[in-house]
Amino acid sequence: MELVVRNTSEVLTCDGPLEGPAEDTLGRVARGAVGVTGGRVVFLGAESELPEGAITSQTTVIDARGGFVGPGFVDCHTHVVFAGDRSDEFEQRCQGKSYLEIAAAGGGIARTVAATREASQEQLVALALPRLTQLLARGVTTAEVKSGYGLDAEAELRTLRAIAALSKAQPVELVATFLGLHAVPPEFKERREAWVRLCVDELLPRIVGEQLASACDAFVEQSAFTHDEARRLAAKAKALGLPLRLHVDQLTANGGAQLAAELGAVSADHLEQISAAGIAAMKQRGTIAVLAPTSTLFARAKPYAPGRALRDAGVLVALCTNCNPGSSNSENVSLAMGLACLENGLTPAEAYLGFTRIGALALSRPELGRLTVGGPADLAIFGCASYRTLPYHLGMNEVAHTIKAGRSVWCA
Amino acid sequence: MELVVRNTSEVLTCDGPLEGPAEDTLGRVARGAVGVTGGRVVFLGAESELPEGAITSQTTVIDARGGFVGPGFVDCHTHVVFAGDRSDEFEQRCQGKSYLEIAAAGGGIARTVAATREASQEQLVALALPRLTQLLARGVTTAEVKSGYGLDAEAELRTLRAIAALSKAQPVELVATFLGLHAVPPEFKERREAWVRLCVDELLPRIVGEQLASACDAFVEQSAFTHDEARRLAAKAKALGLPLRLHVDQLTANGGAQLAAELGAVSADHLEQISAAGIAAMKQRGTIAVLAPTSTLFARAKPYAPGRALRDAGVLVALCTNCNPGSSNSENVSLAMGLACLENGLTPAEAYLGFTRIGALALSRPELGRLTVGGPADLAIFGCASYRTLPYHLGMNEVAHTIKAGRSVWCA
Repeated sequence: MELVVRNTSEVLTCDGPLEGPAEDTLGRVARGAVGVTGGRVVFLGAESELPEGAITSQTTVIDARGGFVGPGFVDCHTHVVFAGDRSDEFEQRCQGKSYLEIAAAGGGIARTVAATREASQEQLVALALPRLTQLLARGVTTAEVKSGYGLDAEAELRTLRAIAALSKAQPVELVATFLGLHAVPPEFKERREAWVRLCVDELLPRIVGEQLASACDAFVEQSAFTHDEARRLAAKAKALGLPLRLHVDQLTANGGAQLAAELGAVSADHLEQISAAGIAAMKQRGTIAVLAPTSTLFARAKPYAPGRALRDAGVLVALCTNCNPGSSNSENVSLAMGLACLENGLTPAEAYLGFTRIGALALSRPELGRLTVGGPADLAIFGCASYRTLPYHLGMNEVAHTIKAGRSVWCA
Repeated sequence: MELVVRNTSEVLTCDGPLEGPAEDTLGRVARGAVGVTGGRVVFLGAESELPEGAITSQTTVIDARGGFVGPGFVDCHTHVVFAGDRSDEFEQRCQGKSYLEIAAAGGGIARTVAATREASQEQLVALALPRLTQLLARGVTTAEVKSGYGLDAEAELRTLRAIAALSKAQPVELVATFLGLHAVPPEFKERREAWVRLCVDELLPRIVGEQLASACDAFVEQSAFTHDEARRLAAKAKALGLPLRLHVDQLTANGGAQLAAELGAVSADHLEQISAAGIAAMKQRGTIAVLAPTSTLFARAKPYAPGRALRDAGVLVALCTNCNPGSSNSENVSLAMGLACLENGLTPAEAYLGFTRIGALALSRPELGRLTVGGPADLAIFGCASYRTLPYHLGMNEVAHTIKAGRSVWCA
């Protein structure tokens, strides 16, 4: 084998049944080892069962020193490609201004849009690189990145091309989502219909044609887009065979979870204001919930989404950093997991699955976020013996080693 | 000069007037430089004013690359010397059990006490070292550490000796506090009076005699110690010339802030439940408020302390990590600063002062947490241009370099 990870407390395959208790989904292998060849997992089991000849003089052996090992993390909702800084707005929000007030005064997304439009593709790449390095250092091997700070045809395409370039330029595999319907661009305030038409009828087909995105998304909110506008996007995405995701029920209750379920969206993201009917609709259609607890805290947009009620209803719950300059300026994966336990009511096992198996499902990439023989060798090796330490050691980083496709790409 | 830090966005001396706006206290020197010789600051001013000959072939020059520089952080309230793990209680608390319920069931402090009593001094040192390394990596050059997990004469003394040993064994300067009145030890449940007498009349004089602590402290709470018991500690501390600090108004409103003011405590710590009368009493006596927002989150013990009201009343507000295994298992300084802004209503400047100038005052070490010519050369050099980024980049670490007494002791 080319690579063997040994001397673990346990390996979590995250390959157990999705139904039932999260602890069963974890697929714990005590004192497990992982063997890798050609970027794929070729051995998964107790270290004592490693076959004769597994380790040769050509094998790279990583000693986990009693730490646990699991699949590389999947951060299924980020906006890490952007320009500009909004730390002054953070200060204002902490002094009581609301996200919507700041947006109404010309701040908010509009400021990031202005800065992002000014930036070249090369600048966008350079600005995003350190953010991806922070994710990598926290065990993330796959991250979704949305457009939506360009908000004109050229800047949206430039953002998506920057994401494609970034995916080649560093180890974190990126999955791009087209979020033209993130905010109504300033130039289209009086003619939003024209922006929706441009996104749905022109940009979306072009983006699919050029394979610049793996999904599309819309921000369904009083201050952003309506149900009907989201429906138009959904219809075109369906015709083009592109998965749909939706930002819903974040700042105001808007029946967005029901809409996401009705439209067959893969995921409904945020959900701070979701209703019981919304939870039931998501369960019925198998819509994945993506919670972003760091942004609930950061945007001061409480309550926290009802993670416990979602899980108890049988909805699959993914987590994300939602890393972005306005409402969640953080790449801190374990902080998101900690908040998910403290504030969304998840257990540590549920939080861990939210950044592995279920996060990957939200990206329609079921082979990721789990370990299977024959599957991709994306691994995170931790300095602690149990996944329970990740949310418990609040906001700290326990990752000792990140492996992408069988290659060591980060170590502490 | 032995060391020069140059190419900064600004140097924050934190040496402006304490009264008035926090922004004035910051003492900002644009494009400042710091010169150091013999562990002391010998130059502080604009880089353009560095005297001829300041930099010679013998000088270590640190290029701050456009980042800002300030005093090393002071974490004025921690419990980092302990043994054992309580991640299972974290899980229970997230599922709805209260801190007091868990304590009543034999968990909580009692568990850490049992594990700490089992540990030798060498083991306590070894367990605390990585925690101090985490603080160092976050720019902390001085940390307070409390006893209070030993809770018998020998284990309390062993803890204080471990703190003294640790202060020599690694770069973070430690300031020990005797917290025998942390919890009533299990052996003393039926005769708490005997424990108070042992702490106050025997241990305290001995600890002062052996110079094992710079302050004493008590947890004033329904589940811990009464006002009268704190008064006895205070009287003895006063007679011995030892500064007093108090844990008050954390889980239940108990008039503790007024008590701390009345007893002339240097600081009143926690304060989630403080009343208007408590704030007024602290202002009148100049008692420093020490807020621990990470523990309000972690212990699910809301509301957050009224940092805004305290500052507005003219009370000096320090911050801390309160790093401990039960209610705040985190060394994340910038998370505490971010929460202080988001949840306690502080501004970024006020939060920054809480971990510098004002944190040092809570330790009765006014020379720390600020930069003055002739003062200690404890520095934190950041990778970002403004202190505003620290709470804004939530839970992330912007420290590029930590300098203790003029020596480089950590770099990214």
